[in-house]
Amino acid sequence: MGSMETSRRNLLKAGTAAAAAVAAAPLTAQAAVSAENTKFDATYDVVVVGSGFAGMACAYKAAKAGLSVLMIEKMGVFGGNSAICGGNMACPVNPVQKAQGIKDSRELFIKDCLKDGLGINHTELLNVLVDRCNDTVKFVQDCGAEFVPNKMLFEGGHSVPRSYEIKAGSGSGYIVPMYETLSKLKNVKMQSRTKFDDFVMNKDGRVVGVVCREGYRFNRNLASDDVENKTGKRKVYGARRAVMLAAGGFSRDIWFRQVQDPRVVPSTDSTNQPGATAGVLLKALEIGATPLQISWLQFLPYCNPHEDGFGVTVNFTNHACMDLGMVVNKKTGKRFMDEHAGRKIKSDAELEVIGTDKNYPIAICDDAIVHAINPSFVKAPLAAKTVFVAQTLPELADHFGIKKDAFLEEVKRFNGFVKDGEDKDFHRILKFNNGLNISKPPFYGVEVAPKIHHTMGGLLINTKAQVISSKTHQPIPGLYAGGEITGGVHGASRLGTVAVLDALTFGMVAGENIAK
Amino acid sequence: MGSMETSRRNLLKAGTAAAAAVAAAPLTAQAAVSAENTKFDATYDVVVVGSGFAGMACAYKAAKAGLSVLMIEKMGVFGGNSAICGGNMACPVNPVQKAQGIKDSRELFIKDCLKDGLGINHTELLNVLVDRCNDTVKFVQDCGAEFVPNKMLFEGGHSVPRSYEIKAGSGSGYIVPMYETLSKLKNVKMQSRTKFDDFVMNKDGRVVGVVCREGYRFNRNLASDDVENKTGKRKVYGARRAVMLAAGGFSRDIWFRQVQDPRVVPSTDSTNQPGATAGVLLKALEIGATPLQISWLQFLPYCNPHEDGFGVTVNFTNHACMDLGMVVNKKTGKRFMDEHAGRKIKSDAELEVIGTDKNYPIAICDDAIVHAINPSFVKAPLAAKTVFVAQTLPELADHFGIKKDAFLEEVKRFNGFVKDGEDKDFHRILKFNNGLNISKPPFYGVEVAPKIHHTMGGLLINTKAQVISSKTHQPIPGLYAGGEITGGVHGASRLGTVAVLDALTFGMVAGENIAK
Repeated sequence: MGSMETSRRNLLKAGTAAAAAVAAAPLTAQAAVSAENTKFDATYDVVVVGSGFAGMACAYKAAKAGLSVLMIEKMGVFGGNSAICGGNMACPVNPVQKAQGIKDSRELFIKDCLKDGLGINHTELLNVLVDRCNDTVKFVQDCGAEFVPNKMLFEGGHSVPRSYEIKAGSGSGYIVPMYETLSKLKNVKMQSRTKFDDFVMNKDGRVVGVVCREGYRFNRNLASDDVENKTGKRKVYGARRAVMLAAGGFSRDIWFRQVQDPRVVPSTDSTNQPGATAGVLLKALEIGATPLQISWLQFLPYCNPHEDGFGVTVNFTNHACMDLGMVVNKKTGKRFMDEHAGRKIKSDAELEVIGTDKNYPIAICDDAIVHAINPSFVKAPLAAKTVFVAQTLPELADHFGIKKDAFLEEVKRFNGFVKDGEDKDFHRILKFNNGLNISKPPFYGVEVAPKIHHTMGGLLINTKAQVISSKTHQPIPGLYAGGEITGGVHGASRLGTVAVLDALTFGMVAGENIAK
Repeated sequence: MGSMETSRRNLLKAGTAAAAAVAAAPLTAQAAVSAENTKFDATYDVVVVGSGFAGMACAYKAAKAGLSVLMIEKMGVFGGNSAICGGNMACPVNPVQKAQGIKDSRELFIKDCLKDGLGINHTELLNVLVDRCNDTVKFVQDCGAEFVPNKMLFEGGHSVPRSYEIKAGSGSGYIVPMYETLSKLKNVKMQSRTKFDDFVMNKDGRVVGVVCREGYRFNRNLASDDVENKTGKRKVYGARRAVMLAAGGFSRDIWFRQVQDPRVVPSTDSTNQPGATAGVLLKALEIGATPLQISWLQFLPYCNPHEDGFGVTVNFTNHACMDLGMVVNKKTGKRFMDEHAGRKIKSDAELEVIGTDKNYPIAICDDAIVHAINPSFVKAPLAAKTVFVAQTLPELADHFGIKKDAFLEEVKRFNGFVKDGEDKDFHRILKFNNGLNISKPPFYGVEVAPKIHHTMGGLLINTKAQVISSKTHQPIPGLYAGGEITGGVHGASRLGTVAVLDALTFGMVAGENIAK
């Protein structure tokens, strides 16, 4: 996160770099291109901007209803962050919970979300997630996504196990089959390296198309690809029914994320793919879309500081060590947080421990835990050597430089908490835990650091996924949005597995409403 | 703040009311009016939108440099919230501090701001305040503003006394003399009941004028005056050099503030004048101005729940009871916060005590304190009967229903802390306090509740007060902003007396730069 001095220097530096690199792009009185005198290169019923969960879900629902769909993706591959995310999906009140006797409710889910979200979530949108989550599960299964059968994950910040585990071990478990399904539909066209630039609006203020560039090559070496990259050939596509914005968040937008939170410097790592920038969001503001809660950046508290981006260790750290094991401060040998809390609470606690001297916390689990998790979760980090395997706990402590005696005491104390069902230090829910079995080696340890993962705010939508105008307080005709480009669902901070549900559900809802 | 249920209901209700009342305003592809084919009714060097501190400071500096200025104000009176605010002004490192041996520094001021601002303040803007604060003091004194001589207020959240006290007891102490000064300048025209509607931009993307309506009548009975009010006659004014946005915050924008924070319901009271809406801010986003940190709403923790809006009791509660006295929870008779902390910390603590049963905290001071403060601070609340005067502390406890024995013990404990110079409960800085003199009646008590006071976020500006485009990361040519319509200076929450400095300084800076 850097000191104040570092932040300021870097912000100024970023500003200067941009100033040097950018040939002043012309600002104009136009918020969008006027439909009058505009010739469309082709016209579809729906144009979808972005190809992650929300975009694919919308495209599928619209296409299944018989509409023609063009999906544009600026990167060379489809799927956006959705393809590389953890991929598990919350589903409050579902049949697996019922079969296992897990009591869940609408109210409990919303209460959990509001806790990490600091109370500013838009509950009318959370209600849509509860109402539709089982439809969303069925819908993705119909597309070919597979969940681990009869399993409910107990994710951080959730009061009960309520998340389906995707068999593939990442969001590709939805993206790959959805892409294949869409590829087979004759009324769906998917174009990569196609960058959205502008809206086309008619006289009545309806969004009726998009201006984009084909053959666009994203350039991660630019200070701002959105501002500086001029590659590709201009095309204008009409959208008879709607334009759907599913362009994701801006965790990799070096300039815009630092404007919102100056503690984030250009070198701050993110779990996101490099194309996660704010361009489409900002363009939507120009036609009067309403911004909300844009300054809340979420860190993912399970990352590994020694690999770039999302890496391959996140699922292991999260589901083995945080869900079922424990996390300690090397300097004290002791736990310092509820390892099952929401992401904001844990990231804040970790950043305090890490401080300025990179004192990364150590996340720990035992062999029984490793056998209880998805085997894919441990395979990759072992190959990447981000996880250390020790035959004894003292050996583990020596390897990482953990204060040994205090640590061994702390493991006993933690096991005592598990036995009593009460965490006297951090009030963690322990009823689904077995503690660490000291007599059964091996033991696993991994260093932990938060990285920017999700931008909570974005465009205001209503329960039909329509984008709301700040000029009229009504939907902008012809414009829908879903997923990370929108705000409100998660408030100040979201719980794990809720974004997958959010993006798929509002993508589905948008597709349904466009087809109506 | 209301429960989740209440919030949701009210948001939906607000949405429905708007839907019913609004004749769909046309959305268009235009972000602004094009200068081509536009006939100006008149042209000035500078058009200033808004007439509070930032607007008047900019108008004065530009006019003094020989430029012609049109200042437009949508309400019937000039001054906006600036005219009714507390009016005291922070000035880190100033001659009065030096004469009194108070050690202050740039670093200490910025550290104080970052603490309540949760670290997300733009320190490059805070540095401008430090660099220019003594110029700002001289400038307002030249206009005729008068401070209490040789006095430094020790405001909540500030580590040392560093704020000038305005003699008039409110922001009118600047607004009245500045208005009179501007009235005498022949090159300044000030128009009330003139509502900004749009920007005029030329082909090069420069802001060259404004569209407004004269004879506009703000209507506080509308769900959204910005959306629904169609009064006034259209006029278009050219601006050769610049348009200055000084239109303030949106604490009274029922719809937009609830979008940002759904806990805030239409009935949530605010200290602001009714015209504090988001219209100009939102219009600026359409021409690509960069939004930042818009979701942070600040509550003022010194308000009285029994008077509407800002009321007449704020200065008494703040400067008598919180700066020098103490605040207790009726139910426990005990203190529950550092009464000298920043606004966010205190508002959060008070909201927790108030809960759902309106258990308003009681702020208390003694007669010595009342004689130490500006006499105007106690006169109005005594007349309004918001303050209760008791001859003994038990009488005060009985009147408000404070748990008596615990309270009397707590007063002794507080006096002990003052004597020892150490607050063992809340780490309040007590070196400028004398405690409560139990043997010298009378005693004063007043109920306390937070009200929405300031919207922290807004448009991104640079250190020259130029509005930064999200499309180019460069200034939007011809566009400046200052005061509450901008964001970044205060981060998540501002300290008292810093907004007066902020608005006056960046108004002054804008005027200077426009005149260059």
